[in-house]
Amino acid sequence: MTSFESDYNNGAHPDILRHFLETNDQQSASYGYDQWSESARTKIREATQCPDANIFFLAGGTQANATVIDAMTASYEGVLAVTTAHINVHESGAVEAFGHKVITLPSHDGKMDATELHDYLKAYHADPTWEHIVYPGMVYITFPTELGTVYKAAEIEQIHAICQEYKIPFFIDGARLGYGLMSAECDFDLPWLAHHCDVFYIGGTKVGALCGEAVVFPRGNAPRQFFTIVKRHGALLAKSRVAGVQFDALFTEGLYLRIAQHAIDKAMQLRQLFTDAGLTLRDSSTNQQFVELANTQMKQLASQVLFETWEPIDNDHTLCRFVTSWATTDQNIAELAQALQTL
Amino acid sequence: MTSFESDYNNGAHPDILRHFLETNDQQSASYGYDQWSESARTKIREATQCPDANIFFLAGGTQANATVIDAMTASYEGVLAVTTAHINVHESGAVEAFGHKVITLPSHDGKMDATELHDYLKAYHADPTWEHIVYPGMVYITFPTELGTVYKAAEIEQIHAICQEYKIPFFIDGARLGYGLMSAECDFDLPWLAHHCDVFYIGGTKVGALCGEAVVFPRGNAPRQFFTIVKRHGALLAKSRVAGVQFDALFTEGLYLRIAQHAIDKAMQLRQLFTDAGLTLRDSSTNQQFVELANTQMKQLASQVLFETWEPIDNDHTLCRFVTSWATTDQNIAELAQALQTL
Amino acid sequence: MTSFESDYNNGAHPDILRHFLETNDQQSASYGYDQWSESARTKIREATQCPDANIFFLAGGTQANATVIDAMTASYEGVLAVTTAHINVHESGAVEAFGHKVITLPSHDGKMDATELHDYLKAYHADPTWEHIVYPGMVYITFPTELGTVYKAAEIEQIHAICQEYKIPFFIDGARLGYGLMSAECDFDLPWLAHHCDVFYIGGTKVGALCGEAVVFPRGNAPRQFFTIVKRHGALLAKSRVAGVQFDALFTEGLYLRIAQHAIDKAMQLRQLFTDAGLTLRDSSTNQQFVELANTQMKQLASQVLFETWEPIDNDHTLCRFVTSWATTDQNIAELAQALQTL
Amino acid sequence: MTSFESDYNNGAHPDILRHFLETNDQQSASYGYDQWSESARTKIREATQCPDANIFFLAGGTQANATVIDAMTASYEGVLAVTTAHINVHESGAVEAFGHKVITLPSHDGKMDATELHDYLKAYHADPTWEHIVYPGMVYITFPTELGTVYKAAEIEQIHAICQEYKIPFFIDGARLGYGLMSAECDFDLPWLAHHCDVFYIGGTKVGALCGEAVVFPRGNAPRQFFTIVKRHGALLAKSRVAGVQFDALFTEGLYLRIAQHAIDKAMQLRQLFTDAGLTLRDSSTNQQFVELANTQMKQLASQVLFETWEPIDNDHTLCRFVTSWATTDQNIAELAQALQTL
Repeated sequence: MTSFESDYNNGAHPDILRHFLETNDQQSASYGYDQWSESARTKIREATQCPDANIFFLAGGTQANATVIDAMTASYEGVLAVTTAHINVHESGAVEAFGHKVITLPSHDGKMDATELHDYLKAYHADPTWEHIVYPGMVYITFPTELGTVYKAAEIEQIHAICQEYKIPFFIDGARLGYGLMSAECDFDLPWLAHHCDVFYIGGTKVGALCGEAVVFPRGNAPRQFFTIVKRHGALLAKSRVAGVQFDALFTEGLYLRIAQHAIDKAMQLRQLFTDAGLTLRDSSTNQQFVELANTQMKQLASQVLFETWEPIDNDHTLCRFVTSWATTDQNIAELAQALQTL
Repeated sequence: MTSFESDYNNGAHPDILRHFLETNDQQSASYGYDQWSESARTKIREATQCPDANIFFLAGGTQANATVIDAMTASYEGVLAVTTAHINVHESGAVEAFGHKVITLPSHDGKMDATELHDYLKAYHADPTWEHIVYPGMVYITFPTELGTVYKAAEIEQIHAICQEYKIPFFIDGARLGYGLMSAECDFDLPWLAHHCDVFYIGGTKVGALCGEAVVFPRGNAPRQFFTIVKRHGALLAKSRVAGVQFDALFTEGLYLRIAQHAIDKAMQLRQLFTDAGLTLRDSSTNQQFVELANTQMKQLASQVLFETWEPIDNDHTLCRFVTSWATTDQNIAELAQALQTL
Repeated sequence: MTSFESDYNNGAHPDILRHFLETNDQQSASYGYDQWSESARTKIREATQCPDANIFFLAGGTQANATVIDAMTASYEGVLAVTTAHINVHESGAVEAFGHKVITLPSHDGKMDATELHDYLKAYHADPTWEHIVYPGMVYITFPTELGTVYKAAEIEQIHAICQEYKIPFFIDGARLGYGLMSAECDFDLPWLAHHCDVFYIGGTKVGALCGEAVVFPRGNAPRQFFTIVKRHGALLAKSRVAGVQFDALFTEGLYLRIAQHAIDKAMQLRQLFTDAGLTLRDSSTNQQFVELANTQMKQLASQVLFETWEPIDNDHTLCRFVTSWATTDQNIAELAQALQTL
Repeated sequence: MTSFESDYNNGAHPDILRHFLETNDQQSASYGYDQWSESARTKIREATQCPDANIFFLAGGTQANATVIDAMTASYEGVLAVTTAHINVHESGAVEAFGHKVITLPSHDGKMDATELHDYLKAYHADPTWEHIVYPGMVYITFPTELGTVYKAAEIEQIHAICQEYKIPFFIDGARLGYGLMSAECDFDLPWLAHHCDVFYIGGTKVGALCGEAVVFPRGNAPRQFFTIVKRHGALLAKSRVAGVQFDALFTEGLYLRIAQHAIDKAMQLRQLFTDAGLTLRDSSTNQQFVELANTQMKQLASQVLFETWEPIDNDHTLCRFVTSWATTDQNIAELAQALQTL
């Protein structure tokens, strides 16, 4: 049965597998010093127009978040994020495991409001008795958000400026970065993003790789001993080629963004199908689509295609998530179209 | 230049790559619920003769160690290990990062002495004032050890019995498990090992895989919410097929042990070469060989093959490590033989 | 200038100082084994009607909270509390420092709603995908709350029953316990409270002592090695008499509750004064009174007595806190009365 | 029965109790901002000749150690200490609880050898592969040591210089600082010590106070947000007068050093008694004396005075500890003399 459950329920993009095959017989250094990791770094420095970037490849998103946050904050500092942020909800407390509180701000369709951020920081620093409260030492956002929405350049600029004003790092979780950049609503590109934050990562797992996230410190600003920190987090890959080879492929001839574009195209076809079927969709210009279904419709549809229930809307309706990827085919779309006709 | 630096400087065994290719087009569940992880679990349950085993696939050894130790101890408990243990030396404090002290006992060629272990536990529980001292809540050994040595069945039985007497779990780090089991000195097999500890892992990264360690709770004794614990450690793979496919291949037709046997065979050829060259070797029946070289010899040899310097012996001599793997060829051996003739 | 800033801005109740004087020349065991700690335990067991209670004396509230929560949860578990809870706001992340997330529920005048708690736990356990979310392993409330409100017996019974249903411990932070018990609105007593939770503490610092909180496990249910846990938290007093002597005095002839009653009486006089002055008060039957003041009034008043600004209401009004204690005198009240006449 | 078990088995020095009495009726600020803490700071700045010192009062030694080490290291850094160090043995893992490994060097009668320290740091920084090993980010010693020995000025100077060379902080645990300074073997004074480290604390609990340690950052070099860090460690005293009043008394008219001198004098009388009785003593010029007793002697003596068994020497002999304090009287000494005559 066709699955739209997630963008990590399929294998690797064929170009990645091919690169594994063609490099398998070569010996290499390990722990990030292999030739493909080095090649991938060079390509990412070009793609981000950050010639001095420090780049590290980690296996997964939660570990990238926990490692980066822990590395760039003092032990007593917390990280500001919206209530719906992945680190606040779906990471089993990986950030708190290293002693850092997630300090929450309201979520606006998954996004942080710059004014609310500024108000919080202003209040913290205005009142000396707030020294009893966790020090806000970092700002974390996801791009695109968990709800498929994207920030505008102006919004990111504002948050970035506030972070600079308060001298705290600004971290962009790009687990699905490609889909945000290829969104029709996105008014900036990868180099622009890299120049408007202190650290971000380029998500591989959800954008065509088997695993792997490329953590980028755009101005060569990796924290001292970051290698040791990665190891301490259990996040250092011995055969680092497993990530290096994949990112080397993803950043060859624009594969990363082509994968994302393909998924977006398919997601827009999904939107059209749902709209044609008279269903209500939440705003999303990325590869995750959130559809309101009556529970009877949901049940009927679930017998024909796989998707994820997101959250109850009321007793009779549920918000459901449909996700596309590099692997989504016209055939998959056709199957969904057919299934929708039975509602 | 041929490298004997490590068993993680080569790619994946070809059977593993082949399995990636043949499964890539199939959709699957994620987070460990994919069909290959399930198939690999079934095969590992058979290979260990543990029909009730709980099995989880993690990406790497340090993260497996930190996750297992943290999961099976109370927050205030420490883990007993010898001074040379990987967790005590080479994991950047990953165990301490989760609050657990590594309590050290002497290392005897990498091995823990059961009597010394018993004495420590007896002393701890005899004296009420030791309540100021970290509670010894787990025992950790590596098999084979970091120095290539192997425990005898009787030694493991003793340690296991002591752990049962004090009701603390016994954990065997099997990052190189295959090489220990295939050692000519090993007097037990995988099922026996699985029945003489509380948790162990089957190392993949150093035995033919690109990444992946299979954590086995042999009697279905995984700690409650272990899934959540793994996620909290940043160790949960979204596309869990990346490990599942590999272990499915490794446990098909005995590939795992065949890989290990091949590396052992090549290591024994290395020993012969070194012995023939009049060099002194430390005892090791596994795939890691430790050779004493005069520093002039070391320099000369290093210009022709790659290997690792382990530790200084005195001002003029160094202990050096040579490691074999699935990928070591007759040609590699011949190159070393030739290099040795130049000494 | 008279201060109503807090209940910890005065010295110790004279009976406590007297007890220090009369015991000072006696030698004693340390680390909680001294004779006054033992005597205080006996008296608290009587006062709580918990003959099997385990009782430990710690120096302060934040350390009591962090130690108890850490001791009674597994490392991966979080603690449920309302957003205004002391552990969520004013403890600088002491709970997260030990790896535990504070999972927040809405605050209703400082109180947790039993139905909302039940809904959360039901949702967590109903949906298997919540295994990515921090496991809710404990419930924490404050009695009285940070806002001076008190739970009714029925409310506590409901929360207790839910905790038992989900087999998670129920912890009552009693930093100001006496003031809650002596509140005119309180419909239960100390033994009843002790029988409707799994652990609580009797706050000394804010109820007449110089320092010290008595952590009570009512049914002899202290976690294994709790002594070691306390030490690991840096919370073990070497000269434990410093707490033992104080609690021995506080639980002699009902001093603890007499102190609380005195403060409540004075707080009710404050309420009357504020009401007579036409000011609006928040509901509070305990020793903390929250008054709405126009900012001009606030400034005028602040020139004559000390109090705390709590939070802004709007641009022109501020909520202010006035607190009484064992040390509040008729003279203090008279000074406030006079000051109010100048508004 | 007279007890020589420890220097924390007696009450407070009478001058301290007197100061509690004379200040009890005064209201004060809290959390370290009270007038007596401020007065004590002024006096300590004078006594240390450190006019810019930052000074914080914590309740106990373990919490002072854990807080200072955590505050002055990055999360991934460990602390170098000798194997017998209090933080390595008797603090239940309080340092590891905050994620920091205690990296051990050999103990020479409780002392660290500067050359061994230098060798370790040189080795760490010489070999790039040590990035897998915990970064040595701080040096910790105790003065006097747990075994009653004292460092010479030259030894401390060497360690200090090494710390400066490697740019890591040097921390002196002064839980028994007074006894070290008053030792006949000590060739420096308090100001000299304060100028040869980056942070130290003046132990109160074991030198006449009921509780309290004064953490001193001699050059105003307290870490940013240290107040918040203290609170996060549960180490912030609400009624900070409890420590402030005590240190104000201790640093009035040299009481602190007078207390120490008295204890040393009594300890030297103990030495004489033991020597006269033909017993063997370990070297110690401070208030802790370690005596070798045959087990039959130990038993006989234990029926007449209290002391601590330290560690077994062999099957028939035990090392025992006798400790003096401000409270040790001529009468106590006489009782011991009498008891020794029965051996």
